[in-house]
Amino acid sequence: MSTKHVGKQSVSLPNPPSIAAGACIVGKKEGEGPLRDSFDYISEDSYFGEKTWEKAESTMQKMAFQKALEKANLPQTVVEFIFAGDLLNQCIGSAFGMRDMGIPFFGLYGACSTMAESLALAALMIDGGFADCTAAVTSSHYCTAERQFRTPLEYGGQRTPTAQWTATAAGALILTSDGPGPYVKHITCGQIVDQGIKDANNMGAAMAPAAYSTLSAHFNDLALKPSDYDLIVTGDLGAVGSSILLDFFKNDGIDLAPYYNDCGLMIYAREEQDVHAGASGCGCSASVLAGHLLNGMRAGRWKKLLFAATGALLSTVSTQQGESIPCICCAVSLSTTK
Amino acid sequence: MSTKHVGKQSVSLPNPPSIAAGACIVGKKEGEGPLRDSFDYISEDSYFGEKTWEKAESTMQKMAFQKALEKANLPQTVVEFIFAGDLLNQCIGSAFGMRDMGIPFFGLYGACSTMAESLALAALMIDGGFADCTAAVTSSHYCTAERQFRTPLEYGGQRTPTAQWTATAAGALILTSDGPGPYVKHITCGQIVDQGIKDANNMGAAMAPAAYSTLSAHFNDLALKPSDYDLIVTGDLGAVGSSILLDFFKNDGIDLAPYYNDCGLMIYAREEQDVHAGASGCGCSASVLAGHLLNGMRAGRWKKLLFAATGALLSTVSTQQGESIPCICCAVSLSTTK
Repeated sequence: MSTKHVGKQSVSLPNPPSIAAGACIVGKKEGEGPLRDSFDYISEDSYFGEKTWEKAESTMQKMAFQKALEKANLPQTVVEFIFAGDLLNQCIGSAFGMRDMGIPFFGLYGACSTMAESLALAALMIDGGFADCTAAVTSSHYCTAERQFRTPLEYGGQRTPTAQWTATAAGALILTSDGPGPYVKHITCGQIVDQGIKDANNMGAAMAPAAYSTLSAHFNDLALKPSDYDLIVTGDLGAVGSSILLDFFKNDGIDLAPYYNDCGLMIYAREEQDVHAGASGCGCSASVLAGHLLNGMRAGRWKKLLFAATGALLSTVSTQQGESIPCICCAVSLSTTK
Repeated sequence: MSTKHVGKQSVSLPNPPSIAAGACIVGKKEGEGPLRDSFDYISEDSYFGEKTWEKAESTMQKMAFQKALEKANLPQTVVEFIFAGDLLNQCIGSAFGMRDMGIPFFGLYGACSTMAESLALAALMIDGGFADCTAAVTSSHYCTAERQFRTPLEYGGQRTPTAQWTATAAGALILTSDGPGPYVKHITCGQIVDQGIKDANNMGAAMAPAAYSTLSAHFNDLALKPSDYDLIVTGDLGAVGSSILLDFFKNDGIDLAPYYNDCGLMIYAREEQDVHAGASGCGCSASVLAGHLLNGMRAGRWKKLLFAATGALLSTVSTQQGESIPCICCAVSLSTTK
């Protein structure tokens, strides 16, 4: 009988894995933002020395993984499983990025929720006794995402006020069965939520109901309340989605605001950097978690943190066929103590 | 310390989950093939009553999942986690197919290896004590795959002799912590293998080295030999890839042939149905496993079976950029006894 399943959507990890290290590699624009000091490497070149942006994204993901290993002071050979994903068609950012690693690989697609999904599964592999060391790796690239999901960059399409800017960023986490933490304590896996939003330029509004669904399930399943956390951070709801999420909780009589932030609002100086509603892309929450948030936990700034990354599971084809946007949110709770 | 990890790439499941039921839903062409009696539903309509082939694929996946639940005699509400994936950009076959289920969802991308990947993770969730009931769901559709990966169907492009025919098929498995089996005993997770093949019309040749890598790791990690299985079945190597795989093992002094078959060679009558090198698509191995293979195990035809699904992790963009084809193979061993 399953003893670790709690409530409808959550699991608790009795042997919580430790995050041995995280690393984040970003582009120039991200390096000009308020979190610049938390990144391990800022590339002035959007091609990262490669011939195409897709190859650049793979290179960025590989750099993040190798930097995380270096910071964990672990050789590549100890990593038993990699969980990785990205936004590109057929997830080629991950497949080509991790191609030469020689490490058992699980490919994921969770759109912008991928860092939470990969972290969740990487942690469960350790808590389940299947591994002692795993990795979670995720990336996005502004230039690959724009031309794949929207228009060629050369087209210079105008962006709507609700649009978010896909971060050029990769994050990698190395998890180990033993270590000083922070520890992965609980996971709440999201259901797909689709409230009928069809505007592909308003991902925040589409994803907010998924974030609300998963966070509510997390609090209910584990009998917790927002104040049990020092920080609750969503992936990339941006200004529009974050405000909707706060409204949803307000309707339930819960004031989430004092404990809440969103990676999509943290990585850029929104006004000065002209990113409209904020950042998006699975590299956004991945790099903010692997850098700023992990550093803050190690420094004692936050002891308990809930990381809830959100993803919009649409494609250009589903949008062209008139479909609304199914969304998902996966939440992982981290603590500096076991 | 991890006690279930064996060798470099394998894990053993001390509390092996039982496959409570499998279901497979296919298109007309598959229903005309030699496995016709093993399918739960054969649609005469490639649209499955929908307006587009992409929506048809989602419907097919949903039908497979609901039929598997019905055969397991379980309500939808007992399924704690779904692991699902497909070949479409951003995996919309799964996202839209599973959208209304209200079940925690992990999206995967393993190309044509997805049924093995989803089965592996669904089994690990149970063996790890995180759930008592999980599901693995996978689909592909000839018409969505052709127009996404190759050319619009209306173009009528000629197929090369090494080309494989993407199966219109979905498979779903329901796993439970208790039950009469067959049981998931071991999992060998593949590394990405890329031997430099660039011909996107010869997936068999590209994927054979990945199958060889994972099967060799499985035998080495667990000190097994091919004759320890009644049947070793790859996903969709087809005629070209299967013959290469047998050659690789012959070079090692191992005769795999007496125990070997390939789902891509089983689902169609290759000559009569004009499918050139055989079938492909993640629905191929998913539907063959959920129907023919599972039925055969229940009937006592095979007691020990190794299911090794292979995937080619390319995209049209990676091919256009001159890249070779990274491939992966995930192997799951099934047994009628614990």
